[in-house]
Order: sequence, then structure tokens, then C-alpha cells
Amino acid sequence: MFARHVDDAAAVDAAARGWCADDPYSADRPLHRGEQPKTWLLPQGRPEFFGPFAAEYEAAWNRAKETIARSGVRVQQVDVSLLQEAAALLYEGPLVAERWSALAGFIEAHPGSTFPVTETILRSGAQAEHTAAALFRAQHRLAEIRRAVRSWLRQAVLVLPTCGGTWTREQVGSDPIGTNSKMGLYTNHCNLLDLSALAVPAGQAGPELPFGVTLFGLPEEEANLTEAARFLLRQQDTIRVAVCGLHMRGMPLEPQMTGLDAVFAEEAQTAPVYRLYKLATEPPKPGLVRTPLGGAPIAVELWDMPMESFGRFTASIPAPLGIGRVELADGRSVPGFVCEAYAAEGALDITVSGGWRNAMAEV
Amino acid sequence: MFARHVDDAAAVDAAARGWCADDPYSADRPLHRGEQPKTWLLPQGRPEFFGPFAAEYEAAWNRAKETIARSGVRVQQVDVSLLQEAAALLYEGPLVAERWSALAGFIEAHPGSTFPVTETILRSGAQAEHTAAALFRAQHRLAEIRRAVRSWLRQAVLVLPTCGGTWTREQVGSDPIGTNSKMGLYTNHCNLLDLSALAVPAGQAGPELPFGVTLFGLPEEEANLTEAARFLLRQQDTIRVAVCGLHMRGMPLEPQMTGLDAVFAEEAQTAPVYRLYKLATEPPKPGLVRTPLGGAPIAVELWDMPMESFGRFTASIPAPLGIGRVELADGRSVPGFVCEAYAAEGALDITVSGGWRNAMAEV
Repeated sequence: MFARHVDDAAAVDAAARGWCADDPYSADRPLHRGEQPKTWLLPQGRPEFFGPFAAEYEAAWNRAKETIARSGVRVQQVDVSLLQEAAALLYEGPLVAERWSALAGFIEAHPGSTFPVTETILRSGAQAEHTAAALFRAQHRLAEIRRAVRSWLRQAVLVLPTCGGTWTREQVGSDPIGTNSKMGLYTNHCNLLDLSALAVPAGQAGPELPFGVTLFGLPEEEANLTEAARFLLRQQDTIRVAVCGLHMRGMPLEPQMTGLDAVFAEEAQTAPVYRLYKLATEPPKPGLVRTPLGGAPIAVELWDMPMESFGRFTASIPAPLGIGRVELADGRSVPGFVCEAYAAEGALDITVSGGWRNAMAEV
Repeated sequence: MFARHVDDAAAVDAAARGWCADDPYSADRPLHRGEQPKTWLLPQGRPEFFGPFAAEYEAAWNRAKETIARSGVRVQQVDVSLLQEAAALLYEGPLVAERWSALAGFIEAHPGSTFPVTETILRSGAQAEHTAAALFRAQHRLAEIRRAVRSWLRQAVLVLPTCGGTWTREQVGSDPIGTNSKMGLYTNHCNLLDLSALAVPAGQAGPELPFGVTLFGLPEEEANLTEAARFLLRQQDTIRVAVCGLHMRGMPLEPQMTGLDAVFAEEAQTAPVYRLYKLATEPPKPGLVRTPLGGAPIAVELWDMPMESFGRFTASIPAPLGIGRVELADGRSVPGFVCEAYAAEGALDITVSGGWRNAMAEV
């Protein structure tokens, strides 16, 4: 099911869940109370990324892994080649014949009515090499893989890229089967191994290029996926904050930032509309005051702070400082330190230094 | 497992039961406390019996059904053609390819080393008609049958003949596959449908021709099979008792017999070695006294009494009567009423009437 929020998906699941007497494959799996998985499993090595945005996807995946590592959960690496072997049994092996077993009658009776690529895949199930004996061998191998994967997943969650890339429409048109196989690289094992999965956004691979990861778990521990997804989304819910004084790297209040799990992101310049003052506080602090005329660019640092921490951070800041919006040279407007104008009266104007770090170095 | 007693089988099961981590098909099924099934299921209509002893097997089956009916359990009839459809999927359909998938390598590498009939069956799994798609269709149909059978079997036990006949060695030699298929008629569905089963003796089809029934249940209710088997064996554990007076059909003490679940079996004559007396009891009773000389055949009735009841019955009999062995005209020796000789002193000798029923009619 597709939903905007984990809670919406959980609500639909609660309403839809149940055993269906008419379906011989229906399983009775009441939803138990979820809990945080004890271990987060990540693939060993470097997953394969593909398509025109492979590099962007890989960078986004690395950021997602860092988010998980930073969150403090227990992480373990597993060899996911077994999953890819299972997926290959589906599209390159006799398991594809299941579709043909169900649809052969319709396809044969309605020539030309099926999308050609779909028909090609369906008919591949009727290849002479796909014998009953070959299918049994594939099913037995699948059972072995399922047993191995189930042993990893007990009280754990496996994280994979939802997709290892995307393609242009032209690329899909010229090689529909190859491109679609690649797109299923990190999901095709899921049904075959009887796993549960929950895919969540994980930042952007680029402009208008969303990225996401999928959490896989055992069906009897399905509710843990919801807990894990909420946790991961909270980790990702950060805000980029401009700091211009004692909170910058190497400065006395940097531990406040790291203690709140904020991570340095980039150096930046304000728009040339500010003046910087050395306030008469103890210790001395900079005051960034917006001015209608005669402003200059001031060096700031941008840090990514968890949204959970941001309120506590803001609440800890003493007057005359506060958190307002800081306009950057590139046009962005980010939350950051501003100073009430009254404090500038009688303070030393250090605008010419270009920033607190330079001003301190000059002392 | 084969065992002489249900308890032995249960003891081996308790020791052997468990989940095997190395077997991807191993299921974790702890044995729960068994209870009597709520319903005993019997096949609708007349099961097929075959081979040179078909009539004897059918008669033995009918006796087994009567034993169950008489026992007082709730009996329900079901259409077992679904089970036979499942069994046919195995030997006449693509499921047979599972053996070929496992053994093809060995068979091909060791020509001539396999018993020819076995090789013929194994190789039938490689027939061109056994495609992967056909196997999926068979597996899906099997799943439907499994669902239906599981719905019958909840808190129930299904009873079938273990075998619907037997063959001579010559018959098996001339048609090994056909004769073996028939012999599996009432068991081949069991593994395919993931059922548990317990086969128990159920009397004799003839001299040196044992008969048995199989109890089928759900694997998660497996312990109920043990309870059901014990119950059925108790029902069958009867003793044939000779009665010669007030316990016969239509006589005043017949309700003692039926109240103990005894069932009239046959009329018989004693060997000509007894004399019959009308004892001076109130009411009058017959006394059967063995005599070295001058004996005559006396009419008796043979009843089948549950062994459980026989002790209570014997304990209830007042002197001068008792339960000893009565020799029958056909040479059998059965437990039955005998009379201590002292009581014959002064009693009326009614040997000439040929039995109590005649003696009473003459009054």
C-alpha cells in the first residue's frame, strides 16, 4: 500500500489484515505489538547502482547509511548475494512459469491483447528448459535461502536501497526487460522469501530525484518494521541551521552542537545585508544584526541538526541572541543566530573582519 | 515409525520431535496435550476395495465402521474424492518430478544400478508434459485441496482403511506400478496435504490377513491422534463370551449385557460334554456343568463384550455361577458361564431341552 505517512499505512493495514478463507495461500498473521529491532542489517560492500543517476543514488545511499550509523543503533553487515540469487530464480529461472500457469489460457485465447513486453515475459515461462524437475530444484534452493535469511532477520531489520537507480523513458523503451530487472534488484527477493517490507523516503539523490530505502523483516515481526521506519524518519528529520560564533567547529560551544547530534554541513556567506558586532558578554559573542543599508557578507557555518533537538537548542540561547532567519549569499534563507539591535549599541562593530573566526584570529 | 503399542510410538515421537536447523523444510511443531477429537469423519459411500481379498477387506472395514458407530462418538461423513485427487497429482501428475529433480544426477551416473520399476517411476518425472507451469497448476490445486481438508479436520479425525486390499506376489510382479498405486489409495494424500497419520490394527480380514485403519489429523493437533487411537483400540479390545441363560437376547438380564456395551455376535452349541440344570434360585437360572460321561450339546449365545467391561461383569455374577471356559461344538473354547457342581445336587436336569430358551418355552 502507498501512503504519505507510516501511521496511515499502519491504519490501513489494521483494517485490511486478516485471514481469507477463500484463498488457499492466506496466512493467519495477527499483528503483534512492534518494537525496535535489536539489529540493523546493511549489505556488505558496495551495492550496485545503475542508470544515468547511478552516482547520485550511491551518494544518497551513503548518506542514508551514515544516518543509520549516527543514530546509535546496532549495525551488522550481511552478504546479500543470497537475496539476489533468489531474485534471479524468479526472472531467469523456472519460477516465472507461475504466471504462465495462470494466464496461458487467456493469452492464447486473446491474441494481440497483451502488452508485447508483458507477453514476452509471460511466454518465457513456457520455455522447454522450465521443467517440473527444474522448478523443484529452484523451490528447494529457495527454501534454503529462505531459511538462511530468516535466521539473519530474527529481531532484526535489513536495509537496502529501494531502487539502485532510475532510467529515462527512452532507456526503458529500448530495453524494457533489462531496465526493469535492474529496478527490481533490491526488491524482487521479497515475495519469494515471504518477507515483509516497508519503504520510506531517505532524502534526495538530486533535484527532483527522490531517494528511499526499504526495510525488510520477518512477517511475524512485521510490526517492528513500523517502529524501525518511524525511528529512521525521525533521524532524517533534520534542519539546517546557520551558526556564526562560538558554536562553529573548533569553538568553545561546538560540543553543544555535537551533543545534540548536529552535523557540520557546509561553510557559507550571508547575503551582504548584515553587520557583525562583538557583544559585551562574557565570554564575548558575535551579534549578527540585519541592516537596511551598509550591510556586508558574513561567514557562517551551516549545521544539520535533528528536528527533535532543535527546540532544546533554541531554548538554550540567552539574550540578546536568538534564532531567526538568516539570508544567505546564494538566496537561501535558513534558521540561524540573530541579535537584537539594542545589544549593538556600544558594541564593537567587527563587520570588516568578515566573520567571527577572522575577528578572533586578528585578536 | 512402526511400534507395537501407541505408547511406544508416542515415546519415540517425544524423543525424536524437534526443529532441525539444517533442514529448510523442518517445521517447529511442539506436541501439545492431546484430547479426544470432537468428530470422527468417515468416507461417504463405499470405499474401493481391490485384489483377491477385496470382499474380506470390505467386510473388515464395515466391522471397523460399526465399532466406531457403536462407541458413541460423533460421526460425520465426508467426500474423500478430494484426497484421491491429491494422490493422483502425485503419481499421475507433475509432482512426481520432485524425485527426478533430486536423483537424476545419480541415476544418469550409475546406469543399471537402480531397481527397474523404481527407475521407470523416477524417469516418469522427466516426461515432457511435466512442465514448470503444469507443476504450478498442480501445486495451486493442491493448496486448494489442502485448505478444504484442513477445514474438515479441525478438532476431528478422519478414518480410512489403511489399505483397501492386498495382492499376491505374482500379481505385484506382473503389474508392480498398478498394484502399488492401489495399495497407496488411502495413504498417498497424506504427505502432500501435510497431514499427520496414525495407523492401528482393526481386527482381521481373514485368517492371517490382518486389517487396519488409519487416523488422519492436522499436524498441529497431532496429539489428538494418539488419544483417538487409544480410544479406538479400547473399543476393539473385546472378548467373546458365552451366555446360556438370563443374559441371552430377550431374557430379563439382557440389559446387563447391552449396558456394558456388549454386542450379540452369534448363536452356538457347546461341545457334547455338558449337562444343564435348572437351579433352585430366585428367579430360576440355568447351571451348565461339565460331565465326564453322558454330556450333550447345549445352546449358548456368544456376545462380544469390551474388555474394559468384562471384569465388572464377572464380578457381578453370584454363586453358584461363575465365568470359566466353555468348550464349543466347533472346538473353540470361550469364556462363559459355568456352574459349581454342588448346586446341581437336587436341581432339575433339563439337559434334554437342549438349552435354557427351549426349557423356558416348554414351561
